[in-house]
Amino acid sequence: MIAYYNGQFLESDKIQISPFDRGFQFADGAYEVVRYYPNKFFEFDAHMERLKYSLSQLDISSVNIERFQEIFVELIQKNELFDQSSIGYIQITRGVQFPRRHSPDPVISPTIFMYVEKLSPNKETHANGVTVGLGEDIRWIRCDIKSISLLANILTKKGAVDKGVYEIVWSRNGFITEGTHTNVAFVKNNVVITPPLNSFILAGITRKVVLKLCDELKLQHEERNISVEELNTMDECFLMATTSEITPVVKIASSTFRTGAPGKVTMLLQKEFQKNIHRNKLM
Amino acid sequence: MIAYYNGQFLESDKIQISPFDRGFQFADGAYEVVRYYPNKFFEFDAHMERLKYSLSQLDISSVNIERFQEIFVELIQKNELFDQSSIGYIQITRGVQFPRRHSPDPVISPTIFMYVEKLSPNKETHANGVTVGLGEDIRWIRCDIKSISLLANILTKKGAVDKGVYEIVWSRNGFITEGTHTNVAFVKNNVVITPPLNSFILAGITRKVVLKLCDELKLQHEERNISVEELNTMDECFLMATTSEITPVVKIASSTFRTGAPGKVTMLLQKEFQKNIHRNKLM
Repeated sequence: MIAYYNGQFLESDKIQISPFDRGFQFADGAYEVVRYYPNKFFEFDAHMERLKYSLSQLDISSVNIERFQEIFVELIQKNELFDQSSIGYIQITRGVQFPRRHSPDPVISPTIFMYVEKLSPNKETHANGVTVGLGEDIRWIRCDIKSISLLANILTKKGAVDKGVYEIVWSRNGFITEGTHTNVAFVKNNVVITPPLNSFILAGITRKVVLKLCDELKLQHEERNISVEELNTMDECFLMATTSEITPVVKIASSTFRTGAPGKVTMLLQKEFQKNIHRNKLM
Repeated sequence: MIAYYNGQFLESDKIQISPFDRGFQFADGAYEVVRYYPNKFFEFDAHMERLKYSLSQLDISSVNIERFQEIFVELIQKNELFDQSSIGYIQITRGVQFPRRHSPDPVISPTIFMYVEKLSPNKETHANGVTVGLGEDIRWIRCDIKSISLLANILTKKGAVDKGVYEIVWSRNGFITEGTHTNVAFVKNNVVITPPLNSFILAGITRKVVLKLCDELKLQHEERNISVEELNTMDECFLMATTSEITPVVKIASSTFRTGAPGKVTMLLQKEFQKNIHRNKLM
Protein backbone atom coordinates (compact mmCIF):
# COMPACT_ATOMS: atom_id res chain seq x y z
CA MET A 1 0.00 0.00 0.00
CA ILE A 2 1.23 3.47 -0.88
CA ALA A 3 0.82 5.98 1.93
CA TYR A 4 1.84 9.59 2.43
CA TYR A 5 4.34 10.73 5.03
CA ASN A 6 5.79 14.21 5.41
CA GLY A 7 5.80 15.15 1.75
CA GLN A 8 6.51 11.73 0.25
CA PHE A 9 4.46 8.90 -1.21
CA LEU A 10 5.95 5.66 0.12
CA GLU A 11 5.17 2.00 0.61
CA SER A 12 3.58 2.09 4.06
CA ASP A 13 6.05 -0.43 5.49
CA LYS A 14 8.89 1.93 4.54
CA ILE A 15 7.50 4.68 6.75
CA GLN A 16 9.56 5.26 9.88
CA ILE A 17 7.90 7.06 12.73
CA SER A 18 10.50 8.22 15.24
CA PRO A 19 10.09 6.79 18.76
CA PHE A 20 10.48 10.43 19.82
CA ASP A 21 7.46 11.53 17.80
CA ARG A 22 5.16 13.30 20.25
CA GLY A 23 2.31 11.34 18.72
CA PHE A 24 3.93 8.12 19.90
CA GLN A 25 5.05 9.33 23.34
CA PHE A 26 2.29 11.78 24.34
CA ALA A 27 -0.70 11.27 22.01
CA ASP A 28 0.02 14.86 21.02
CA GLY A 29 -1.91 15.03 17.77
CA ALA A 30 -5.21 15.05 15.91
CA TYR A 31 -6.76 12.95 13.15
CA GLU A 32 -9.65 12.64 10.72
CA VAL A 33 -11.25 9.76 8.85
CA VAL A 34 -12.87 10.88 5.57
CA ARG A 35 -15.15 8.89 3.32
CA TYR A 36 -14.57 8.24 -0.36
CA TYR A 37 -17.56 7.13 -2.44
CA PRO A 38 -16.57 6.60 -6.07
CA ASN A 39 -15.61 9.09 -7.29
CA LYS A 40 -15.67 11.80 -4.64
CA PHE A 41 -14.67 12.45 -1.05
CA PHE A 42 -17.79 13.05 1.03
CA GLU A 43 -18.17 16.26 3.07
CA PHE A 44 -14.44 16.84 2.69
CA ASP A 45 -14.57 20.52 3.63
CA ALA A 46 -16.45 19.76 6.85
CA HIS A 47 -13.75 17.26 7.85
CA MET A 48 -11.02 19.78 7.10
CA GLU A 49 -12.82 22.47 9.10
CA ARG A 50 -12.94 20.09 12.07
CA LEU A 51 -9.27 19.19 11.61
CA LYS A 52 -8.40 22.89 11.62
CA TYR A 53 -10.37 23.26 14.85
CA SER A 54 -8.60 20.29 16.50
CA LEU A 55 -5.18 21.62 15.48
CA SER A 56 -6.03 25.11 16.73
CA GLN A 57 -7.04 23.69 20.13
CA LEU A 58 -3.71 21.85 20.28
CA ASP A 59 -1.91 24.98 19.07
CA ILE A 60 -0.29 23.04 16.22
CA SER A 61 0.27 25.48 13.39
CA SER A 62 1.99 25.65 9.98
CA VAL A 63 -0.02 22.78 8.52
CA ASN A 64 -1.08 23.32 4.91
CA ILE A 65 -4.59 21.82 5.04
CA GLU A 66 -5.38 23.05 1.53
CA ARG A 67 -3.15 20.35 -0.02
CA PHE A 68 -4.81 17.37 1.69
CA GLN A 69 -7.58 16.82 -0.82
CA GLU A 70 -5.18 16.48 -3.75
CA ILE A 71 -2.96 14.16 -1.68
CA PHE A 72 -5.95 11.94 -0.89
CA VAL A 73 -6.93 11.89 -4.58
CA GLU A 74 -3.38 10.88 -5.46
CA LEU A 75 -3.48 8.12 -2.82
CA ILE A 76 -6.74 6.81 -4.29
CA GLN A 77 -5.13 6.76 -7.74
CA LYS A 78 -1.83 5.19 -6.65
CA ASN A 79 -3.69 2.46 -4.76
CA GLU A 80 -6.16 1.89 -7.62
CA LEU A 81 -9.21 2.51 -5.45
CA PHE A 82 -10.87 4.87 -7.88
CA ASP A 83 -14.06 2.83 -8.16
CA GLN A 84 -14.04 1.45 -4.60
CA SER A 85 -15.87 2.65 -1.49
CA SER A 86 -12.94 3.65 0.73
CA ILE A 87 -11.80 5.69 3.69
CA GLY A 88 -8.99 8.20 3.97
CA TYR A 89 -7.09 8.55 7.24
CA ILE A 90 -5.02 11.57 8.20
CA GLN A 91 -3.04 11.97 11.39
CA ILE A 92 -1.06 15.05 12.35
CA THR A 93 1.19 15.11 15.40
CA ARG A 94 3.16 17.98 16.87
CA GLY A 95 6.38 16.37 15.59
CA VAL A 96 9.60 14.79 16.81
CA GLN A 97 11.19 16.12 19.99
CA PHE A 98 14.36 14.88 21.65
CA PRO A 99 15.00 14.76 24.53
CA ARG A 100 11.51 13.80 25.68
CA ARG A 101 9.89 16.62 27.66
CA HIS A 102 6.21 17.19 28.37
CA SER A 103 6.48 20.84 27.39
CA PRO A 104 6.34 21.15 23.58
CA ASP A 105 9.35 22.61 21.78
CA PRO A 106 7.87 25.43 19.64
CA VAL A 107 10.32 24.93 16.76
CA ILE A 108 9.51 21.33 15.78
CA SER A 109 7.58 20.56 12.58
CA PRO A 110 4.37 18.52 12.53
CA THR A 111 4.36 14.90 11.36
CA ILE A 112 1.74 14.18 8.69
CA PHE A 113 0.64 10.62 7.87
CA MET A 114 -2.16 9.74 5.42
CA TYR A 115 -3.41 6.55 3.88
CA VAL A 116 -6.49 5.19 2.10
CA GLU A 117 -8.14 1.82 2.50
CA LYS A 118 -10.97 0.02 0.72
CA LEU A 119 -13.89 -0.14 3.11
CA SER A 120 -17.63 -0.60 2.68
CA PRO A 121 -20.25 -0.15 5.38
CA ASN A 122 -21.48 -3.42 6.85
CA LYS A 123 -24.70 -4.23 4.98
CA GLU A 124 -25.87 -6.69 7.62
CA THR A 125 -25.69 -4.23 10.55
CA HIS A 126 -27.20 -1.50 8.33
CA ALA A 127 -30.19 -3.69 7.50
CA ASN A 128 -30.75 -5.50 10.79
CA GLY A 129 -29.32 -3.14 13.40
CA VAL A 130 -27.07 -3.74 16.38
CA THR A 131 -27.18 -4.12 20.15
CA VAL A 132 -25.31 -1.54 22.22
CA GLY A 133 -24.44 -1.35 25.91
CA LEU A 134 -24.38 1.60 28.29
CA GLY A 135 -21.41 2.87 30.28
CA GLU A 136 -20.10 5.77 32.34
CA ASP A 137 -18.13 8.21 30.17
CA ILE A 138 -14.56 7.88 31.50
CA ARG A 139 -12.96 10.33 29.06
CA TRP A 140 -11.43 13.74 29.53
CA ILE A 141 -13.61 16.82 29.10
CA ARG A 142 -12.31 17.94 25.68
CA CYS A 143 -14.07 15.35 23.55
CA ASP A 144 -14.76 18.11 21.02
CA ILE A 145 -11.11 17.73 19.90
CA LYS A 146 -10.63 14.77 17.53
CA SER A 147 -7.33 13.81 19.13
CA ILE A 148 -5.29 10.60 19.01
CA SER A 149 -5.43 10.46 22.83
CA LEU A 150 -7.92 7.59 22.45
CA LEU A 151 -7.11 5.11 25.20
CA ALA A 152 -10.45 5.66 26.97
CA ASN A 153 -12.26 4.93 23.68
CA ILE A 154 -10.13 1.84 23.09
CA LEU A 155 -10.64 0.35 26.54
CA THR A 156 -14.40 0.94 26.36
CA LYS A 157 -14.65 -0.46 22.81
CA LYS A 158 -12.64 -3.51 23.93
CA GLY A 159 -15.13 -3.94 26.78
CA ALA A 160 -17.99 -3.78 24.24
CA VAL A 161 -16.42 -6.49 22.07
CA ASP A 162 -15.75 -8.63 25.16
CA LYS A 163 -19.44 -8.28 26.11
CA GLY A 164 -20.56 -9.09 22.56
CA VAL A 165 -22.17 -5.72 21.84
CA TYR A 166 -21.42 -3.46 18.87
CA GLU A 167 -20.75 -0.28 20.77
CA ILE A 168 -20.97 1.31 24.22
CA VAL A 169 -23.07 4.47 24.50
CA TRP A 170 -21.63 6.61 27.25
CA SER A 171 -23.34 8.88 29.77
CA ARG A 172 -21.83 11.60 31.92
CA ASN A 173 -23.59 12.74 35.08
CA GLY A 174 -26.65 10.76 34.00
CA PHE A 175 -26.90 12.23 30.49
CA ILE A 176 -26.11 10.46 27.22
CA THR A 177 -22.99 11.73 25.44
CA GLU A 178 -21.98 9.47 22.52
CA GLY A 179 -20.42 6.12 21.59
CA THR A 180 -16.71 5.29 21.51
CA HIS A 181 -16.55 6.09 17.79
CA THR A 182 -20.14 7.13 16.95
CA ASN A 183 -22.66 9.83 17.75
CA VAL A 184 -26.06 8.63 18.91
CA ALA A 185 -29.62 9.78 18.18
CA PHE A 186 -33.10 8.69 19.22
CA VAL A 187 -36.57 9.02 17.80
CA LYS A 188 -39.59 9.71 20.02
CA ASN A 189 -43.02 10.45 18.53
CA ASN A 190 -41.34 11.04 15.15
CA VAL A 191 -38.99 13.65 16.62
CA VAL A 192 -35.25 13.00 16.12
CA ILE A 193 -33.38 13.78 19.36
CA THR A 194 -29.60 13.94 19.79
CA PRO A 195 -27.32 15.38 22.51
CA PRO A 196 -26.26 19.01 21.96
CA LEU A 197 -22.75 19.99 20.81
CA ASN A 198 -20.46 20.81 23.70
CA SER A 199 -17.01 19.75 24.91
CA PHE A 200 -18.35 16.33 25.99
CA ILE A 201 -19.01 15.08 22.43
CA LEU A 202 -17.43 15.24 19.00
CA ALA A 203 -19.19 17.36 16.40
CA GLY A 204 -19.81 14.44 14.04
CA ILE A 205 -19.98 15.08 10.30
CA THR A 206 -22.60 12.33 9.81
CA ARG A 207 -24.57 13.84 12.71
CA LYS A 208 -24.51 17.19 10.89
CA VAL A 209 -25.68 15.60 7.62
CA VAL A 210 -28.50 13.78 9.46
CA LEU A 211 -29.79 17.03 10.96
CA LYS A 212 -29.70 18.62 7.52
CA LEU A 213 -31.65 15.66 6.10
CA CYS A 214 -34.23 16.07 8.88
CA ASP A 215 -34.75 19.65 7.73
CA GLU A 216 -35.14 18.57 4.12
CA LEU A 217 -37.60 15.82 5.11
CA LYS A 218 -39.44 18.23 7.44
CA LEU A 219 -38.73 15.86 10.31
CA GLN A 220 -38.77 17.66 13.63
CA HIS A 221 -35.45 17.43 15.52
CA GLU A 222 -34.10 18.52 18.87
CA GLU A 223 -30.55 18.87 20.16
CA ARG A 224 -31.01 18.48 23.90
CA ASN A 225 -29.79 16.56 26.94
CA ILE A 226 -31.16 13.02 27.19
CA SER A 227 -31.12 11.31 30.56
CA VAL A 228 -30.35 7.60 30.87
CA GLU A 229 -33.77 7.11 32.47
CA GLU A 230 -35.42 8.53 29.35
CA LEU A 231 -33.99 5.80 27.08
CA ASN A 232 -36.82 3.43 27.93
CA THR A 233 -39.33 5.90 26.50
CA MET A 234 -37.59 6.19 23.10
CA ASP A 235 -39.15 4.62 19.99
CA GLU A 236 -35.98 4.30 17.94
CA CYS A 237 -32.22 4.65 18.30
CA PHE A 238 -29.39 4.87 15.77
CA LEU A 239 -25.65 5.50 15.57
CA MET A 240 -23.94 7.95 13.22
CA ALA A 241 -20.32 7.78 12.04
CA THR A 242 -18.23 8.40 8.94
CA THR A 243 -17.34 4.75 8.49
CA SER A 244 -20.58 3.07 9.62
CA GLU A 245 -22.90 5.86 8.39
CA ILE A 246 -26.37 5.36 9.95
CA THR A 247 -26.58 2.12 11.90
CA PRO A 248 -29.89 1.21 13.60
CA VAL A 249 -29.84 0.15 17.26
CA VAL A 250 -32.45 -2.52 18.01
CA LYS A 251 -31.55 -3.19 21.63
CA ILE A 252 -29.80 -1.35 24.47
CA ALA A 253 -28.41 -3.81 27.01
CA SER A 254 -29.38 -3.22 30.66
CA SER A 255 -32.34 -1.06 29.61
CA THR A 256 -35.80 -2.06 28.42
CA PHE A 257 -35.16 -0.43 25.04
CA ARG A 258 -35.60 -3.10 22.39
CA THR A 259 -37.43 -2.65 19.13
CA GLY A 260 -36.80 -6.00 17.49
CA ALA A 261 -36.20 -4.27 14.17
CA PRO A 262 -34.75 -0.98 12.90
CA GLY A 263 -37.15 1.95 13.30
CA LYS A 264 -39.08 3.56 10.47
CA VAL A 265 -37.57 7.03 10.84
CA THR A 266 -34.09 5.50 11.13
CA MET A 267 -34.54 3.61 7.88
CA LEU A 268 -35.98 6.65 6.13
CA LEU A 269 -32.89 8.64 7.17
CA GLN A 270 -30.61 5.80 6.06
CA LYS A 271 -32.25 5.82 2.61
CA GLU A 272 -32.02 9.61 2.33
CA PHE A 273 -28.39 9.45 3.43
CA GLN A 274 -27.60 7.18 0.46
CA LYS A 275 -29.47 9.53 -1.89
CA ASN A 276 -27.51 12.44 -0.44
CA ILE A 277 -24.20 10.65 -1.12
CA HIS A 278 -25.27 10.26 -4.74
CA ARG A 279 -26.39 13.91 -5.01
CA ASN A 280 -23.14 15.00 -3.41
CA LYS A 281 -21.10 13.07 -5.99
CA LEU A 282 -22.84 14.83 -8.83
CA MET A 283 -22.15 18.29 -7.47
CA MET B 1 22.46 7.21 21.32
CA ILE B 2 21.89 3.48 21.61
CA ALA B 3 18.29 2.57 22.47
CA TYR B 4 16.40 -0.71 22.77
CA TYR B 5 13.55 -1.71 20.48
CA ASN B 6 11.80 -5.07 20.36
CA GLY B 7 14.79 -7.22 21.27
CA GLN B 8 17.52 -5.15 19.61
CA PHE B 9 20.00 -2.49 20.68
CA LEU B 10 20.06 0.13 17.92
CA GLU B 11 21.08 3.68 17.22
CA SER B 12 17.89 5.52 18.18
CA ASP B 13 17.58 7.17 14.75
CA LYS B 14 17.51 3.70 13.16
CA ILE B 15 14.38 2.75 15.10
CA GLN B 16 11.27 2.60 12.91
CA ILE B 17 7.95 2.77 14.66
CA SER B 18 5.18 1.69 12.30
CA PRO B 19 2.53 4.35 11.59
CA PHE B 20 0.10 1.51 12.39
CA ASP B 21 1.52 1.05 15.88
CA ARG B 22 -1.43 1.39 18.25
CA GLY B 23 0.77 3.60 20.40
CA PHE B 24 0.96 6.11 17.54
CA GLN B 25 -2.69 5.90 16.41
CA PHE B 26 -4.57 5.32 19.68
CA ALA B 27 -2.22 6.08 22.62
CA ASP B 28 -2.76 2.42 23.42
CA GLY B 29 0.16 1.83 25.76
CA ALA B 30 1.88 2.46 29.09
CA TYR B 31 5.23 3.82 30.19
CA GLU B 32 7.59 4.37 33.11
CA VAL B 33 10.45 6.73 33.83
CA VAL B 34 13.01 5.24 36.22
CA ARG B 35 15.86 6.98 37.95
CA TYR B 36 19.50 5.96 37.76
CA TYR B 37 21.84 7.32 40.41
CA PRO B 38 25.37 6.01 39.88
CA ASN B 39 25.51 3.11 40.12
CA LYS B 40 21.98 1.82 40.72
CA PHE B 41 18.43 2.20 39.48
CA PHE B 42 16.30 3.69 42.25
CA GLU B 43 13.15 1.88 43.44
CA PHE B 44 13.26 -0.21 40.30
CA ASP B 45 10.93 -2.91 41.62
CA ALA B 46 8.29 -0.34 42.56
CA HIS B 47 8.36 1.05 39.01
CA MET B 48 8.05 -2.43 37.52
CA GLU B 49 5.14 -3.25 39.85
CA ARG B 50 3.37 -0.11 38.63
CA LEU B 51 4.16 -0.98 35.00
CA LYS B 52 2.66 -4.45 35.57
CA TYR B 53 -0.44 -2.77 37.00
CA SER B 54 -0.77 -0.39 34.03
CA LEU B 55 -0.37 -3.24 31.54
CA SER B 56 -2.91 -5.37 33.39
CA GLN B 57 -5.44 -2.52 33.27
CA LEU B 58 -4.86 -2.26 29.51
CA ASP B 59 -5.01 -6.06 29.21
CA ILE B 60 -1.60 -6.10 27.47
CA SER B 61 -0.01 -9.42 28.28
CA SER B 62 3.05 -11.51 27.29
CA VAL B 63 5.54 -8.81 28.32
CA ASN B 64 8.63 -10.16 30.05
CA ILE B 65 9.12 -7.47 32.71
CA GLU B 66 11.86 -9.47 34.45
CA ARG B 67 14.33 -8.65 31.65
CA PHE B 68 13.95 -4.87 31.81
CA GLN B 69 16.50 -4.22 34.56
CA GLU B 70 19.29 -5.96 32.68
CA ILE B 71 18.33 -4.14 29.47
CA PHE B 72 18.50 -0.79 31.28
CA VAL B 73 21.90 -1.70 32.76
CA GLU B 74 23.11 -2.59 29.26
CA LEU B 75 21.79 0.74 27.93
CA ILE B 76 23.66 2.60 30.68
CA GLN B 77 26.85 0.74 29.72
CA LYS B 78 26.45 1.14 25.96
CA ASN B 79 25.83 4.86 26.35
CA GLU B 80 28.67 5.27 28.87
CA LEU B 81 26.45 6.78 31.53
CA PHE B 82 27.73 4.54 34.29
CA ASP B 83 28.80 7.43 36.54
CA GLN B 84 26.08 9.89 35.46
CA SER B 85 22.79 10.75 37.09
CA SER B 86 20.33 9.55 34.43
CA ILE B 87 16.80 8.47 33.65
CA GLY B 88 15.56 5.34 31.94
CA TYR B 89 12.40 5.51 29.82
CA ILE B 90 10.33 2.48 28.87
CA GLN B 91 7.23 2.53 26.69
CA ILE B 92 5.12 -0.50 25.86
CA THR B 93 2.30 -0.34 23.33
CA ARG B 94 -0.18 -3.01 22.33
CA GLY B 95 1.62 -3.40 19.00
CA VAL B 96 1.13 -2.89 15.27
CA GLN B 97 -2.32 -3.49 13.80
CA PHE B 98 -3.36 -3.10 10.18
CA PRO B 99 -5.94 -2.21 9.08
CA ARG B 100 -6.61 0.41 11.75
CA ARG B 101 -9.54 -0.61 13.96
CA HIS B 102 -10.43 0.67 17.45
CA SER B 103 -10.98 -2.86 18.69
CA PRO B 104 -7.61 -4.48 19.52
CA ASP B 105 -6.56 -7.56 17.58
CA PRO B 106 -5.70 -10.11 20.31
CA VAL B 107 -2.87 -11.74 18.34
CA ILE B 108 -0.55 -8.74 17.91
CA SER B 109 2.70 -8.50 19.91
CA PRO B 110 3.56 -5.52 22.11
CA THR B 111 6.08 -2.90 20.99
CA ILE B 112 8.82 -2.22 23.55
CA PHE B 113 10.99 0.90 23.38
CA MET B 114 13.58 1.86 25.99
CA TYR B 115 16.28 4.47 26.24
CA VAL B 116 18.46 6.20 28.83
CA GLU B 117 19.44 9.82 29.05
CA LYS B 118 21.77 11.81 31.27
CA LEU B 119 19.66 14.00 33.53
CA SER B 120 20.23 15.73 36.85
CA PRO B 121 17.59 17.39 38.97
CA ASN B 122 17.53 21.15 38.69
CA LYS B 123 19.60 22.43 41.63
CA GLU B 124 18.15 25.92 41.40
CA THR B 125 14.48 24.86 41.68
CA HIS B 126 15.43 22.35 44.39
CA ALA B 127 17.06 25.07 46.48
CA ASN B 128 14.78 28.02 45.81
CA GLY B 129 11.45 26.43 44.95
CA VAL B 130 8.96 27.14 42.21
CA THR B 131 5.64 28.87 41.57
CA VAL B 132 2.72 26.73 40.47
CA GLY B 133 -0.73 27.56 39.16
CA LEU B 134 -4.10 25.95 39.81
CA GLY B 135 -6.44 24.42 37.24
CA GLU B 136 -9.48 22.20 36.76
CA ASP B 137 -8.46 18.59 36.19
CA ILE B 138 -9.55 17.94 32.59
CA ARG B 139 -8.30 14.35 32.39
CA TRP B 140 -10.10 11.03 32.17
CA ILE B 141 -10.93 9.16 35.37
CA ARG B 142 -8.25 6.43 35.13
CA CYS B 143 -5.26 8.55 36.12
CA ASP B 144 -4.03 5.58 38.17
CA ILE B 145 -2.86 4.04 34.86
CA LYS B 146 0.51 5.44 33.71
CA SER B 147 -0.58 5.53 30.08
CA ILE B 148 0.79 7.36 27.06
CA SER B 149 -2.66 8.95 26.52
CA LEU B 150 -1.15 12.19 27.82
CA LEU B 151 -2.68 14.98 25.73
CA ALA B 152 -4.52 16.50 28.72
CA ASN B 153 -1.22 16.62 30.64
CA ILE B 154 0.56 18.15 27.64
CA LEU B 155 -2.00 20.89 27.02
CA THR B 156 -2.07 21.81 30.71
CA LYS B 157 1.73 21.79 31.00
CA LYS B 158 1.91 23.96 27.86
CA GLY B 159 -0.51 26.36 29.55
CA ALA B 160 1.76 26.44 32.61
CA VAL B 161 4.82 27.29 30.53
CA ASP B 162 2.84 29.96 28.64
CA LYS B 163 1.84 31.48 32.02
CA GLY B 164 5.41 31.32 33.31
CA VAL B 165 4.73 28.85 36.13
CA TYR B 166 6.57 25.57 36.73
CA GLU B 167 3.54 23.33 36.97
CA ILE B 168 -0.25 23.34 37.21
CA VAL B 169 -1.77 21.62 40.26
CA TRP B 170 -5.16 20.25 39.27
CA SER B 171 -8.36 19.96 41.29
CA ARG B 172 -11.43 17.84 40.54
CA ASN B 173 -14.78 18.75 42.07
CA GLY B 174 -13.00 21.23 44.32
CA PHE B 175 -10.38 18.81 45.65
CA ILE B 176 -6.67 18.78 44.80
CA THR B 177 -5.53 15.82 42.67
CA GLU B 178 -1.96 16.25 41.39
CA GLY B 179 0.22 18.12 38.89
CA THR B 180 0.63 17.31 35.20
CA HIS B 181 3.74 15.20 35.94
CA THR B 182 4.08 15.45 39.72
CA ASN B 183 2.27 14.47 42.91
CA VAL B 184 1.69 17.26 45.40
CA ALA B 185 1.90 17.43 49.20
CA PHE B 186 1.37 20.10 51.81
CA VAL B 187 2.55 20.70 55.36
CA LYS B 188 0.26 22.13 58.03
CA ASN B 189 1.31 22.32 61.69
CA ASN B 190 4.17 19.92 60.87
CA VAL B 191 1.79 17.31 59.45
CA VAL B 192 2.50 16.20 55.86
CA ILE B 193 -0.77 15.99 53.91
CA THR B 194 -1.25 14.53 50.44
CA PRO B 195 -4.31 13.40 48.45
CA PRO B 196 -5.25 9.72 48.88
CA LEU B 197 -4.58 7.09 46.21
CA ASN B 198 -7.58 6.55 43.95
CA SER B 199 -8.25 6.51 40.22
CA PHE B 200 -7.87 10.32 40.03
CA ILE B 201 -4.12 10.33 40.73
CA LEU B 202 -1.04 8.32 39.88
CA ALA B 203 0.50 6.26 42.69
CA GLY B 204 3.82 8.12 42.56
CA ILE B 205 7.00 6.26 43.55
CA THR B 206 8.55 9.44 45.01
CA ARG B 207 5.28 10.00 46.92
CA LYS B 208 5.62 6.49 48.39
CA VAL B 209 9.25 7.12 49.39
CA VAL B 210 8.31 10.44 51.01
CA LEU B 211 5.62 8.78 53.14
CA LYS B 212 8.14 6.11 54.18
CA LEU B 213 10.63 8.86 55.12
CA CYS B 214 7.91 10.57 57.19
CA ASP B 215 7.53 7.32 59.16
CA GLU B 216 11.28 7.07 59.70
CA LEU B 217 11.47 10.70 60.80
CA LYS B 218 8.36 10.27 62.98
CA LEU B 219 6.70 13.04 61.01
CA GLN B 220 2.92 12.76 61.18
CA HIS B 221 1.29 12.33 57.77
CA GLU B 222 -2.21 12.13 56.37
CA GLU B 223 -3.55 10.88 53.05
CA ARG B 224 -6.80 12.78 52.72
CA ASN B 225 -8.83 15.01 50.45
CA ILE B 226 -7.65 18.62 50.37
CA SER B 227 -10.06 21.30 49.18
CA VAL B 228 -8.86 24.20 47.06
CA GLU B 229 -10.13 26.57 49.78
CA GLU B 230 -7.84 24.89 52.30
CA LEU B 231 -4.67 25.79 50.35
CA ASN B 232 -4.51 29.20 51.95
CA THR B 233 -4.18 27.60 55.38
CA MET B 234 -1.17 25.43 54.43
CA ASP B 235 2.31 26.22 55.79
CA GLU B 236 4.32 24.48 53.05
CA CYS B 237 3.83 22.83 49.69
CA PHE B 238 6.06 20.59 47.58
CA LEU B 239 5.98 18.51 44.41
CA MET B 240 7.17 14.90 44.11
CA ALA B 241 8.32 13.17 40.92
CA THR B 242 10.91 10.69 39.71
CA THR B 243 12.77 13.24 37.64
CA SER B 244 12.41 16.35 39.79
CA GLU B 245 12.44 14.49 43.14
CA ILE B 246 11.21 16.85 45.90
CA THR B 247 10.70 20.38 44.60
CA PRO B 248 9.53 23.09 47.04
CA VAL B 249 6.60 25.30 46.04
CA VAL B 250 6.99 28.84 47.32
CA LYS B 251 3.92 30.37 45.67
CA ILE B 252 0.58 29.19 44.32
CA ALA B 253 -0.76 31.63 41.73
CA SER B 254 -4.35 32.84 42.27
CA SER B 255 -4.25 31.82 45.91
CA THR B 256 -2.76 33.61 48.92
CA PHE B 257 -0.30 30.74 49.47
CA ARG B 258 3.19 32.18 49.32
CA THR B 259 6.00 31.33 51.69
CA GLY B 260 8.83 33.32 50.14
CA ALA B 261 11.19 30.40 50.75
CA PRO B 262 11.04 26.58 50.80
CA GLY B 263 9.51 25.22 54.02
CA LYS B 264 11.46 23.58 56.84
CA VAL B 265 9.73 20.21 56.65
CA THR B 266 10.07 20.22 52.85
CA MET B 267 13.81 20.80 53.08
CA LEU B 268 14.18 18.16 55.78
CA LEU B 269 12.45 15.65 53.52
CA GLN B 270 14.59 16.73 50.57
CA LYS B 271 17.75 16.09 52.63
CA GLU B 272 16.49 12.72 53.85
CA PHE B 273 15.54 11.81 50.29
CA GLN B 274 19.16 12.31 49.21
CA LYS B 275 20.39 10.21 52.14
CA ASN B 276 17.86 7.53 51.18
CA ILE B 277 19.22 7.46 47.61
CA HIS B 278 22.69 6.88 49.00
CA ARG B 279 21.48 4.14 51.39
CA ASN B 280 19.55 2.53 48.54
CA LYS B 281 22.66 2.40 46.36
CA LEU B 282 24.58 0.54 49.05
CA MET B 283 21.90 -2.11 49.42
